[in-house]
Amino acid sequence: MDYSGRQQRLREDLRRHRLDALLVTHLPNIRYLCGFSGSSGALLVLTDSSTLFTDGRYTQQASAEVRAAKVKIVRNSPLIAAMEWLGRKALSGGTKSHVVGIEAQYLTVAARRSLSEAQSKRVRIKETAALVERARMIKDADEIQVIRSAVEHGAALFEAALQVLRPGVREVEVAAEMEYAARKGGAEGMSFETIIASGERSALPHGRASEATVAARGFVVCDFGVILHGYCSDRTRTVYMGAATGEARRVYAAVLASQQAAIAAVRPGASVSQVDGAARKVLKQHGLAQYFTHSTGHGVGLEIHEAPRVAQGQQEILRPGMVITIEPGVYLPGKWGVRIEDMVVVTEHGCEVLTPTQKELIVI
Amino acid sequence: MDYSGRQQRLREDLRRHRLDALLVTHLPNIRYLCGFSGSSGALLVLTDSSTLFTDGRYTQQASAEVRAAKVKIVRNSPLIAAMEWLGRKALSGGTKSHVVGIEAQYLTVAARRSLSEAQSKRVRIKETAALVERARMIKDADEIQVIRSAVEHGAALFEAALQVLRPGVREVEVAAEMEYAARKGGAEGMSFETIIASGERSALPHGRASEATVAARGFVVCDFGVILHGYCSDRTRTVYMGAATGEARRVYAAVLASQQAAIAAVRPGASVSQVDGAARKVLKQHGLAQYFTHSTGHGVGLEIHEAPRVAQGQQEILRPGMVITIEPGVYLPGKWGVRIEDMVVVTEHGCEVLTPTQKELIVI
Repeated sequence: MDYSGRQQRLREDLRRHRLDALLVTHLPNIRYLCGFSGSSGALLVLTDSSTLFTDGRYTQQASAEVRAAKVKIVRNSPLIAAMEWLGRKALSGGTKSHVVGIEAQYLTVAARRSLSEAQSKRVRIKETAALVERARMIKDADEIQVIRSAVEHGAALFEAALQVLRPGVREVEVAAEMEYAARKGGAEGMSFETIIASGERSALPHGRASEATVAARGFVVCDFGVILHGYCSDRTRTVYMGAATGEARRVYAAVLASQQAAIAAVRPGASVSQVDGAARKVLKQHGLAQYFTHSTGHGVGLEIHEAPRVAQGQQEILRPGMVITIEPGVYLPGKWGVRIEDMVVVTEHGCEVLTPTQKELIVI
Repeated sequence: MDYSGRQQRLREDLRRHRLDALLVTHLPNIRYLCGFSGSSGALLVLTDSSTLFTDGRYTQQASAEVRAAKVKIVRNSPLIAAMEWLGRKALSGGTKSHVVGIEAQYLTVAARRSLSEAQSKRVRIKETAALVERARMIKDADEIQVIRSAVEHGAALFEAALQVLRPGVREVEVAAEMEYAARKGGAEGMSFETIIASGERSALPHGRASEATVAARGFVVCDFGVILHGYCSDRTRTVYMGAATGEARRVYAAVLASQQAAIAAVRPGASVSQVDGAARKVLKQHGLAQYFTHSTGHGVGLEIHEAPRVAQGQQEILRPGMVITIEPGVYLPGKWGVRIEDMVVVTEHGCEVLTPTQKELIVI
């Protein structure tokens, strides 16, 4: 991964925002900028160098992982250590004061307060929003390659699910088989709690696999993803147990048409709300729009949910290299639900669906 | 779970802190107070009622899970909706202004700012620290029962690990078998990324299972836990592959003695730093104190790491019902490491080790 290039682009952003430094505390941002994957650290990016502050548990790991940054192992909080270090540097560097940006969307109120207490008079703190997250929206070739692997690996899990999805099996057993296949295939873990929602539970958009048993008839929503080399995959397929009713087939077809319309709308220059609108329009034509109770999609990368949000009212314009999910759903409360989700990457002229395999209704 | 009782005790705390309300945004705190386990919500606890604000994805789940609180499904951010609702209530309730506490250790700087923008003149915001977390430190009988189940379930995974731990097996395969056993047994998931760290990797205190293969000789640190009904377990065992050297046996025995000394120090009235000191003292006698690079333990409950920290410089006094880990370790960089961890519950007169099974060195 091109950590130096990422930091270089961030430095250009710092200059534009009149910042002398950025104190990066959101762990996926730290990983993006220097490769460190530990659970405790603060990365201080200055205009001419970067330093990762972490604690003694990570001495070896930091030395193995970190690129394009020095490493300092500290005994106190990495955040405070970084601030104190910056204060000493500002004091020794002449009269100029340093303006350091903080990540306001992640830093807590309490941490902000402790930063103030550790703050040298020569350092000014300025809130920033999404400086690194905005860069992360556009995936580079290395990232897209890793995401492709994660998506392909994730797709294989669905085969594992189909092997065990039978009436009477517990939802958690299906999840267990998928997660086992994920780990055996080298995944670091699941990118979120596996959703296996059968029968009435399929009407829960976030129906995590439960002890409930799969009924002989009805929809089963399977929403799952893996983490591979730090990057997430995300995919949903909905299958039907038993002979599908006409209504079930009609709703499934409507959700699929909605999903395909949204995918067709994904191209550079389109806004995320246009994509969301394309999905919603089809469901409206089928009288189902009021049952589509969430947004159409979200960015995916080092985090399972990242920018941009593909939703009504959002202004982001799609650009090549963005990787997003397209996942409309229809949920009839107390009855059942259907969701179909793929990951797509925005290309120069449109988009490429990363998620392989067909989406016609599978009846078991 | 006694949600009403928990909220009642919190209300007494609110009065002590001269608060009219607490805006609870940390999800484990929300779950503790009203049972809601969704990933988006804000719970507003007033002196006479509580309301959970969440979004349309959680309509059914909230109605099924939430106790001792009303539920409002909102279209905008639950946090902002709660603040606006409080503002309207304050306006309609006469001239008195409302003081609402926020969770400063979890609320972000950006969310704090958006709260200010949504704030009525009749509402004052006050930072609070750990009001709910301090209550959560003392587990009630229901919680201890669930934690016991989680610990017992977690212990069974080690048997699964021992079945596959052989020279040449990949660390992730061992983790896969454990996680499969966890899921099959009904766990909602793992309480953290499973650590299987063999050979030199055992010197990494946080050596997540990797693609590395287990060597024919040397230590393997296995640190793992499950989530059952929302509660976490946490346990570490270190085994030896091949014939253990004298040095390996000596270090293992020292870590075990250190762990037992710390457990012996756990009783009501003792401070967490005394417990930490007891572990450290034994390792010092063996000339190993400088290789014990982390704290002795932490609280466990709805979160894998919660209060109290069992560490040097911490002042917390142990009280009956606290559930903590005791997990000293010795890490010889580039060589190997050993860690032994149990969960214990503080009782009226001392403590009970929750984690079953023996801790003598297992040689494979």
